[in-house]
Parts: sequence; structure tokens; C-alpha cells
Amino acid sequence: MKKPQELSFDQAAVFQISHAQRTGLELIWDRLEAQEPQCGFGTLGLCCRHCVMGPCRIDPLGDGPKKGVCGATADTLVARHLCRMIAAGAAAHSDHGRRPAILLKEVALGENSAYTIKDEEKLRAVAARLGISPEGEVSQVALAVAEVALSDFGKQDTRPLRFLEAYAPKKRLEHWQKLEEKLLAQTGALFGVLPRSIDREVVDIMHRTTMGMDHDPASLLLQGVRCALSDGWGGSLIATEIQDILFGTPYPRKVRANLGVLKEEAVNIVVHGHEPVLSEMIVQVAQEEELVKMAREMGAEGINVVGLCCTGNEILLRQGVPVAGNELHSELVLTTGLCEAMVVDVQCIYPALPRLAQCFHTKFISTSDQAKFPGAVHIQFFEEKAAEVARAIVRLAVENFKNRDPQKVHYPRIAEEALVGFSVEALLKALGGSVKPLVDAIAQGVIKGVAGIVGCNNPKVRQDYFLVSLCRELLKRDILVVGTGCWAIAAAKAGLMKPEAAAEAGPGVKRLCETLGIPPALHMGSCVDCSRMLVLLGAVADHLSCDISDLPVAGSAPEWTTEKAVSIGTYFVASGVPVHLWPAPPVLGSPAVTKLLTQELDSLLGGFFFVEEEPAKAARKMEEVILARRKKLGLG
Amino acid sequence: MKKPQELSFDQAAVFQISHAQRTGLELIWDRLEAQEPQCGFGTLGLCCRHCVMGPCRIDPLGDGPKKGVCGATADTLVARHLCRMIAAGAAAHSDHGRRPAILLKEVALGENSAYTIKDEEKLRAVAARLGISPEGEVSQVALAVAEVALSDFGKQDTRPLRFLEAYAPKKRLEHWQKLEEKLLAQTGALFGVLPRSIDREVVDIMHRTTMGMDHDPASLLLQGVRCALSDGWGGSLIATEIQDILFGTPYPRKVRANLGVLKEEAVNIVVHGHEPVLSEMIVQVAQEEELVKMAREMGAEGINVVGLCCTGNEILLRQGVPVAGNELHSELVLTTGLCEAMVVDVQCIYPALPRLAQCFHTKFISTSDQAKFPGAVHIQFFEEKAAEVARAIVRLAVENFKNRDPQKVHYPRIAEEALVGFSVEALLKALGGSVKPLVDAIAQGVIKGVAGIVGCNNPKVRQDYFLVSLCRELLKRDILVVGTGCWAIAAAKAGLMKPEAAAEAGPGVKRLCETLGIPPALHMGSCVDCSRMLVLLGAVADHLSCDISDLPVAGSAPEWTTEKAVSIGTYFVASGVPVHLWPAPPVLGSPAVTKLLTQELDSLLGGFFFVEEEPAKAARKMEEVILARRKKLGLG
Repeated sequence: MKKPQELSFDQAAVFQISHAQRTGLELIWDRLEAQEPQCGFGTLGLCCRHCVMGPCRIDPLGDGPKKGVCGATADTLVARHLCRMIAAGAAAHSDHGRRPAILLKEVALGENSAYTIKDEEKLRAVAARLGISPEGEVSQVALAVAEVALSDFGKQDTRPLRFLEAYAPKKRLEHWQKLEEKLLAQTGALFGVLPRSIDREVVDIMHRTTMGMDHDPASLLLQGVRCALSDGWGGSLIATEIQDILFGTPYPRKVRANLGVLKEEAVNIVVHGHEPVLSEMIVQVAQEEELVKMAREMGAEGINVVGLCCTGNEILLRQGVPVAGNELHSELVLTTGLCEAMVVDVQCIYPALPRLAQCFHTKFISTSDQAKFPGAVHIQFFEEKAAEVARAIVRLAVENFKNRDPQKVHYPRIAEEALVGFSVEALLKALGGSVKPLVDAIAQGVIKGVAGIVGCNNPKVRQDYFLVSLCRELLKRDILVVGTGCWAIAAAKAGLMKPEAAAEAGPGVKRLCETLGIPPALHMGSCVDCSRMLVLLGAVADHLSCDISDLPVAGSAPEWTTEKAVSIGTYFVASGVPVHLWPAPPVLGSPAVTKLLTQELDSLLGGFFFVEEEPAKAARKMEEVILARRKKLGLG
Repeated sequence: MKKPQELSFDQAAVFQISHAQRTGLELIWDRLEAQEPQCGFGTLGLCCRHCVMGPCRIDPLGDGPKKGVCGATADTLVARHLCRMIAAGAAAHSDHGRRPAILLKEVALGENSAYTIKDEEKLRAVAARLGISPEGEVSQVALAVAEVALSDFGKQDTRPLRFLEAYAPKKRLEHWQKLEEKLLAQTGALFGVLPRSIDREVVDIMHRTTMGMDHDPASLLLQGVRCALSDGWGGSLIATEIQDILFGTPYPRKVRANLGVLKEEAVNIVVHGHEPVLSEMIVQVAQEEELVKMAREMGAEGINVVGLCCTGNEILLRQGVPVAGNELHSELVLTTGLCEAMVVDVQCIYPALPRLAQCFHTKFISTSDQAKFPGAVHIQFFEEKAAEVARAIVRLAVENFKNRDPQKVHYPRIAEEALVGFSVEALLKALGGSVKPLVDAIAQGVIKGVAGIVGCNNPKVRQDYFLVSLCRELLKRDILVVGTGCWAIAAAKAGLMKPEAAAEAGPGVKRLCETLGIPPALHMGSCVDCSRMLVLLGAVADHLSCDISDLPVAGSAPEWTTEKAVSIGTYFVASGVPVHLWPAPPVLGSPAVTKLLTQELDSLLGGFFFVEEEPAKAARKMEEVILARRKKLGLG
């Protein structure tokens, strides 16, 4: 059994893992160990189950088969599987975006009175951007915005998404258009990269990857690009923008992060998953006098709602609700014995959680029709009865306080402070209303450039080690770091989101942070909010009348896990940003696909993937990319 | 090496396989052998690559892991994978349906003049069914029908598909609605089975099956049902109905089937895949004087277009174009050395084909942006320039005639006659305008019931053996057989689609066939036309004011291969039809999912799956199902 400090870089996690190991609680690292050695074919992408002539495997080294039963080669197998990962990831983010879009429509039509439009300014700004008149009745403007968003999900013409047309910077849009024309002229074949509708691109991939369809890795990957773009500049962007409209655009606020945000004296409710729709309501009703009174009657001091993973990020940024941790903390938080309820919505929710909850008094409550769990209490969430549902959940948690077993309580009193909430709007405000001061800082060499880091945790990587170390390495090199998702929580837990953390950074980043009063690592939101980074990149590119692929920026997903991360990485690459990944994606079984991803995409899209196992090496490579782009721009 | 007669039941195939074995040509059976033993985890559905914490495998028997890294169990792994198969299959069929829907709109708007509306009567009938006024200008009616179809692909409300509402029989629609209500009342959780939009249900599955989402096998399978229904009563139905509008509804005609339809003296063009849009145009231009003259100048007698697989079925039924074979004939047709060109559109096109074509003079021509092939000549198909593209393809084939190597020509002079083209409209016409004579024949016990058999071929099953033997077994038992896809071609090749084949059937089927002048095995179309069987079932159910699940019918996919077949099987089961499968789907690793599919779905939907390896046993079980339903209806 590995030592806890080998498994996590987070001291609170180490504390809880030690406890779990002592008390014999099964954690995710145990299950990973049980799975090892993992299948080499799968790891390399050389397995196919897309029809029942298979399963087929391709032998990368020996005398075994080099073709599946249908004749598909390693290149096809690897490219198809990668495309399906993108399709699933884009589907997840985009389906997430569909929900607030429908809700906004219902609110605008008066069909839902549980929610209101909290950020009218953002609504009008989004409308203006989409070419909708921002004047007039809020409900009319909201309806028009919702209709455009819903049309982007389902329209059946070939015009690019309206959100993409409205948000992508001019030169990038031209780049994609010209790429399609160039490929047609060069090959005589149609290759599409501009997404037609969000849902359609997912369906296109699923069709294209069935048996006997697309076998050209470049063709497959370009459809992957198209689908990923429909996520980044479509589904995810719609999620972010409409959630801001409904729940408020994040602005800087001080928060606390890590398991120490649990309160021994209070009813603790952990909300976990990715959406703010229910969790916002739980935060709201948990403050209602009647429920607080009920908690006091049960002997608790009050009700303590804490977040986890990206649901945590959503309410962290908008409500200042403390966050208990990132993805790998989801089991650890249960092992504290302090959770009266864990309430989950969608995505990244280990099915091990309800079983672990049963070792304690914790109620594990699922709420989504799309995510049900054997062993869970299911309380169905209906948007139109949001407050009632939220109250029922909170009541269940409060009633459960009496069942807490003090013998089983064990938790670390560890939590860090963080200044979070750097939406594009907040950043612009900090910059005095324009990207110019940031551009000037880059142009004058105060900072070399900007790096974006995104989620997840992955038990194959020591928790938070890569996320945090890479961030530190970049800051030392005078590269400002922005990011989302599980990275953001890791950085918060590590203290990198305190303004005083600028002291750890190089002199340029330090000066910039001090000038602007910001931390060196900026929390831009949940993983669906990677769209905020795209919008920021777009604003800078348009300000300079250049393309994103000209900017001294780079991205990384250093502990990635989910199919969503593949979509995110791909839409950044397709938008002109080089992206570091660790662990290696399941593509190494095809040298051709590996070359496409790491080299050839660069000439097509101005972005590419690269893999590095060590934080310092990854940072060095990101710096190299940034310096090369600076040079091309004529910056010293 | 297995003997050719062990690999195929078709004598033409045996002849070609022997030739290939002698001359050292690699065929699909060789690649299957090279893949054996195939992965046991994959075969049982116990492998997961939905995130990079994996690949994970579950040990079904020994002391190995019973959970993936996230904690997912065998039940989740199996159900998720099955859902993704349905999603891919539904995506394939539905994407197929999208193309004619868009084309109909373009034709209606005058944006495409390469195509016309060939079947105005069908157009007006479809319009009336959809609640659109069937009167007035053709283009107006066509536009309205196209708009409803496209809306079913992309609409974002929760109302069921309009095509489903218009075509599903009354009692079945009520059954689905009540099922949703009943499950909500029983469990407090939302389960949806009525599809909201075609694309959305695919996206929902992809989202739901990412890491940390739905883990309840029943919940997953019901979403699979919803997605499959969006295929059967949505995408596939739209494909069938609009293709009939654009290209004509099939009516009975005599055709020829098997490799012997190739002509040694002619330029042979094989069209392969699934869509009629290009192939209809190739058939048309191949008759143009200029091209025929060119062929004669090259020394050929003329141009011989033949079909293969479901593209073959489309032009077989509408144009009487001979069909060279079903899926497993796609390599064999190349080994004849007689093909000047193989032209492919989408689906079930082995990537081995272009490599095999290179052993001959054959040009392998791909045409779809969604299906590109290393080693192919790509001639991009554009609907608006359909005739020009088709002419360029035919010209290339004609010019290639001179490169044919007589030394390499080897083909069987085997072809059967068949009477095909039993669309619902054609059947109703044969029945005198109403389903009543068919219903009476069933009610009076002239025939016991009706069975539907659908494609594919699968090299794990002796080609056509199960397809043909099952059909014969059913006919002997006085069960009329209808079907589509690769089964239909197998039945045609086996002579079962000649009216005189009724002599092989039981006395009741024989009498019915003689009375109506039909063969005992009725060709209803390509695999996307399984929707015709749904429409027929719906017509009978509505005629009797009962549900499809009351009717003495059963289905089978006895040599299935593709993900499309999983979707087809599921929408039949979900519509109330018990469905036999062979080979077993990759679900046996989860006893819970296996029980759901084979037993519990019956009480929810009135249909279920069952697996049988032997044609006679499968026929017996289908007969039992039919007899049990007869008894329930009070029929002797």
C-alpha cells in the first residue's frame, strides 16, 4: 500500500487518507491498485468494440494482428476512440449548457417563478454581442437570448453557431473559414471545422465512428475539432453566459478552501457535481429561518453548506460558499464523518460514494434524472419546484444530524484563504475597463505571457502535485496563471490564490499583481467556464487585431481524467493554443495520430498537444512556446 | 484455414472464397481468425475506457476487481456500453435521415434543381399524417414536411417527436406516456422514454455515460430506449418517408440477386453503402447515351450498375437495379476482377476494401465527407451538382475498363430471381387497400403471425445460414416473414423471394401467398426501412384498436454486426416486439442487465430480447411468443 503522502500533495488529504487506511475504508487509490496492470491495448487506444465482429485488438509491437476484422488499422482505431471521447465530453458540457438556456426561456416566459434574472447588465451585454437589441423589457431580451442559444443546440442549417460567430475573434473565425476552403482546394474533399449545431456535431461523430465509416485519421480528428469547437464556443459558453445571467457574474471575493471548512458543530451539507441550478437554491434555503431553527433544535449551531468539485466552484464564485475540495476530495470528505448529506447533480461523481457514505450516517442524495446511483436516496429535482426540493433536501440533512457518530468523526482543521471570482468582466474591471493594461504588461515584458490550467484530479497522479507545481513553475517564470475546475480548487487549497502568493512569483508577475491587487493564480470558474478563457483570449486578439494563435499563451491539463478534458483541450488547440497534457491520452498506439496531434494540427490550426510527465519540464516547454510567439510578435 | 462452405451458406460466396484462398487474397474471415481469441472482457461488456483513470476491467469469475477505479460495477459498465452502441446506431440512421430531409427542403425552395419530388402522392399522404394540409402547391407541402422533419432533429422542447406522435399507434403512445408517469409515481425519479428530439437523445446518452453520471442500469437502458425510439419512429422513419417522396415509393418488381449479376462484357459499377441520393443519380446517368457510347468505344457492351448492401437495396426496390450481394459479399465482389469501380457512400464499408481493390484494376471511390478511406480515390459528392459528380464517377469507371486483367477474372454465374418492393403502400395495395385481409388471415388462423428479420452479415456466423434457415423454419410454421437489409438480400439470393417459394412454406402461408400473388418472404427495404415494419405494425394495431405488444409478431437479427442493429432491436422491443439476437450482445458480464433485457423490459414495454444460437430453436421460441399472444387475443 502506498504511503498517503505519495498519493496526495494536499496535507488535508494526506491526513484523511491515513485515517482511511487505518480504519480500512476503501478509497479510489485502492481500486486503482486493484486494476493494475491496466490493459495495454486500451491504454494505447488499440482496442475497438464498435461492432460485434470484435472486440478487436491491434498488436503494436509483435506479430499479432495489425488490422481489426473489418480491416481498420491502428490509426483508425485510435482516431475513432479519441473522437468519441470528444463527443462525450462535448455532450456533457453542452447538455449542461442546455439546462440554463431552457431555464432562461422559462423564466422569460413566466413559466418558472422559482428563478429570476439576477444579472440584467450581463443579459444586455450578451444580447448586444449576439446582435439582439439590448434595450427594452428584460423578459423580451432574455427570451431572445435564450432562443438564439437553443437554436445553436438544434438548428439544421450549415451556418456556424451564432454564439461562435459572435464571440470568436475576427481573425480566428477567418482562419477556420479559410482552412475549410484550403482543404477542399487541396484535396477535393469536404472537411468541416466550423460547427453547424451543438447536438449535430456529437451525432456526426457517433455516426462517423460506427463500423465502415470514416477511416482517415485527419478527417476524424477534424470532425473532433468541429465538435470540440461547438463545446468551447457553443455549449460551454452558453452555460457560462446564461448561468451568469441567472445567478450573477462572479466578482472577486474572499473564500476558504479545503476540508477544514466543515464545521463540527453544524449540519454539514456537501454539494457536489457541476451545476449551480440546484446548489444555488440549497445555499439560499439553508439560510431560511425555519430550517436554521430546526438545525438548532437538533443541537447544531446552524447549517453549513460547502461545495465540492465544480458545483463547489459555481457557488464559491457567486456566493462565497466555502469549497471542501476538488475531485479526489469527494471520498475524503465523507471519511470525516461530518457530512449529514452529500447532494449531487451531474458529472465526476464516483459511484463509490454512496457505498462509502453507508459506512457513516451520511445521506447520499442524487437529484438528476441523468445521474442515478445504486445505494443513493433519490430526490428528484424539478426546476419549477426548486425551492421546495431544496428545502426537502436540507430538511433531510438536518434531521440526520442526530445520527452523526462522534466516534467516527476525524477531520483536518486545514483550510486556506483565497481571492476568487475572476470572470472576464471582473478582470476587465480590475484592469480599468480594457484589456490594454494586460496587453501592455505583456508587450513591455513585465510578464512573458499567460498560461491557463484546467482540472481534473486523477489518482494516477499524486493529487494536486502537478496542478500546483506547474502553477508555481510558471509563476516563477513570470507567466501569469489563470484557470478553472479542479486546478482552481487545488491552487486555492495551496494558497496560490491569496494576493500575497505573488511573492512566490517572478518579479514581473509580482509587480502586476501588486498593481492590480490580484493573486498570481486567477480562479475563472468551473470547468464549463473554460469558455471564459476563450472569451479573454478573443478580447486580447481582437484588441491587437491578431489571431489567438499569435498570442504568447499556453494551456495545460496536468491531472486530467474525463472525456470533457479531451474536448476542452481540443477546443483550445483548435482555437490556436498549444496544450500540455498529462497523463498521455490513449493515442500512442498510432504514430500517425500522435504526429497529427503533436505536430500537424499546428500548421492547420495554430495549436497542438504535447505530453510531459514532470511539472518543471512542462513549464519549460510552455515557456518556450510563449517565448517563440513573443519573438514572432517582435517582443523582446 | 476453414473450408469455404463452413464460412458461407451462399454457393456464389463459397465459389469466390475458394478462389481467394487459392490466390492468397486476404478476406474478412482471415482477419477474424487472426483476432481470435477475442478479448473476453470486451465480449462480456466488462471493459471501460470512458476516462483515463482506466482502462478498467472487471473480473466476472475470479478474485480480480469487481469495480472500476471510480467504483463503477459490471452493471454500470455493461449498461453504459450498450447505451453508447444504441447512441451510435441511432446517430447513423438518423444522420442518414437528415440528408433527405435537408434535400427535400432545398428542392422545395428551389435551391437544388438536381432532384425533384418523384412521389407527390406519398408527399401528400405524409403531410396529412403529420397534420399538414396536403392540398396546394407541391413545393409548399414539401417545405412544410421538411420543416417538421428537421424540427424533430433539433427541437429543444420536451414534447415527443412529431413523427412519432403522427405514426405510432394510439395505444402504444399511451403506453409510453403511462410508463413515464408510472415510474415517476413508483420511484419519485424521472425516467423518460418518449424522445424529445433525435439529436438530443444521442447527446443525452453520451453525457449520461461519461464518468460519474448515470450508474443505474435501468435508468441507462430506458434512456437507450428513448434514443432508439427517436431512431425508429424518428430518424429512420424520416429517411424512409422522405426518400420515398424524393425517389418514389417501392412497388413490387422482379429483380436479380447475387454475384452473377456482374456482366463480363460490360463496365461494372458496384454501388455500396446505405444511401440512395448518389446511387439513384449514378443509375440515371449510366443510361445517358454519351456515357454508354463511351463504354462501347472502350470495347464494353454497356454500363452495368449493380448494388451492394443497403445502397443496393435502395436502388433494387426503386429502380430494379440488380444486387450483387449483402455485406459479406463486399470483398467477394472485388475478387471477381470484374469491377471497374466500387462507389461507396456511408456505413458498413470495410476499410479493407480499398486495399483489396488495389489487387485488381478496380477504382475504389469514396464520396462522403463522413467516410474517407486511406487508399481510395475521393470524389466529393455535392447534392447540388449531383449529376456532374455521378457522371465523373461513371466516366472514371468506363475509362478503367481497359485496365481489366482477364487473367484475374473469376466469378460465379449464380444469381436468383426475386419479387421485391413490399413497402407498406405496396402491401396495402396487394391486400386491396386495407390491412383487414392480413388481420383476417391471422385471426382465422390461416397464418399464425408475422416475423420480421433484419440484417446484417457477421463473419462469426456462417454467411446467410441463420438468415435463410430461420426464415425457412418460420415459413414452415406458417409464420409470414417480412424484413430488410442484409437479410432481404440473403433471402433473395436463396430464392425465398420468388412467389413459387411459397411451396416451401406451411399450408397457410402458401395459401395466403397464392391468393395475394406474393412471395412468402417480403422485401421491405434497406436497414433504415425497418421503420416500414413499425408503420405496418402500427396500422394493424390501430385497425384492431390494440397495442403492438398484443399482436402475434416477433423479430430477429440473427447475424447482426453493427451498432445500428442494437438501436433497431431496441426500438422494436420498446415498441412491443420480442426480438431474437445472435450473436449475443456484449452484456453477459452483467446478470442484472441481462435480466433487464430478457425479462424486465417485457413488463415495462411489452417486448424483450432473447438469444438463441440455432435457427430451429430461435424459430421455435418466436413461434411460442406468437402463439402465446394469439392465446391472449383469444385466437385458436
